Amino acid sequence: MVRVHNFMVSSDGYGSGVGQSLEHPFGHANPDDLFAWAEATAHWVNRTEPGGTYGLDDFCTRDFTWNIGAEIMGRNKFGPQRGPWEDLDWEGWWGEDTPFHTPVFVLTHHVRPSLTLGDTTFHFRNASPQDVLAEALEAADGKDVRIGGGVATVREFLDADLIDQMQFTLTPVELGRGERLWNSPEDLVDRFFLEKVPSPSGVMHLFFWRR
Amino acid sequence: MVRVHNFMVSSDGYGSGVGQSLEHPFGHANPDDLFAWAEATAHWVNRTEPGGTYGLDDFCTRDFTWNIGAEIMGRNKFGPQRGPWEDLDWEGWWGEDTPFHTPVFVLTHHVRPSLTLGDTTFHFRNASPQDVLAEALEAADGKDVRIGGGVATVREFLDADLIDQMQFTLTPVELGRGERLWNSPEDLVDRFFLEKVPSPSGVMHLFFWRR
Repeated sequence: MVRVHNFMVSSDGYGSGVGQSLEHPFGHANPDDLFAWAEATAHWVNRTEPGGTYGLDDFCTRDFTWNIGAEIMGRNKFGPQRGPWEDLDWEGWWGEDTPFHTPVFVLTHHVRPSLTLGDTTFHFRNASPQDVLAEALEAADGKDVRIGGGVATVREFLDADLIDQMQFTLTPVELGRGERLWNSPEDLVDRFFLEKVPSPSGVMHLFFWRR
Repeated sequence: MVRVHNFMVSSDGYGSGVGQSLEHPFGHANPDDLFAWAEATAHWVNRTEPGGTYGLDDFCTRDFTWNIGAEIMGRNKFGPQRGPWEDLDWEGWWGEDTPFHTPVFVLTHHVRPSLTLGDTTFHFRNASPQDVLAEALEAADGKDVRIGGGVATVREFLDADLIDQMQFTLTPVELGRGERLWNSPEDLVDRFFLEKVPSPSGVMHLFFWRR
């Protein structure tokens, strides 16, 4: 299975804002607006204190790691740099304590040596979706592969029709511009079943699975 | 954690009907009415064919086994017999291919030797909730313990205040009589947070977690 989980989308279809930088990983989008529902849950991957909710939202954050054996991400999720690497000291946003705990394959036109942080090794690949997926599935050793984003990477795997399941979370905030995932979630119902489930926290979870 | 999952409740609060027998494990309640939502999901524990849904209902069936290391059930879940065992040939409803895959502790006033079917061993205990839970937690080896029901067993563990998390599913069917779980789910909100999430399939999932 190839899966997308906990992918935040604004009410007008954007997964990220414009102007990504070291200080603003999501550009002009406020991460607190996008992630508040997840941060409140018991199984939020970055939770450091005990506590948190165990309702619907927690089912979604719990699923982020469930049976996942590898992640594929785009370079813009790994960092704000563009073009050739000028500084190999950049090792991602996460430090030694990454939320992944599996091999991660970073799609980039500018490859660099693999990098191990804690229990996560990042591999850099200039490859087609099909080829990097084959490698990730092998690394996942029978488990599933998560397509981690950003928007361009999810779109690329959707266009190649390589995704089996997706969970997006619509947050009631308008971004107006940025990286757009869709005009409407209904764009995908020719290929996917879609369930829309409003959460008591105020967000709306969208569950897609292949027809 | 001590958890309850996929516990079906009628709209008037019953978890089972009257007149349990070999042919009617839920008495006059029609199991198809209670379980249809679960049987449709990809991760339903008794699914034998590929396919099934991956929406909200599937999150609930998936959670049935997630991080569970042991189950505690009442004798009436194990079988329709009452009083001393007249027939030790009865080995539960499930055959060799049980849905549990962990040790199971059966509460009964009439103990009998442990029984292994496939990867599941059933232990029979005449013990307090506290004592059988201590044994189940040890057997679970760091994982969680599921309270598997029926109604009387869930009520007993609720009365002893030993449960951390529960997921019930309200089905739109009235039973009128049987084993009653509650007058209203609101009965429990003094001790538990409660989220009610309507599913597109027509049932309503109730998520409880300890305050």
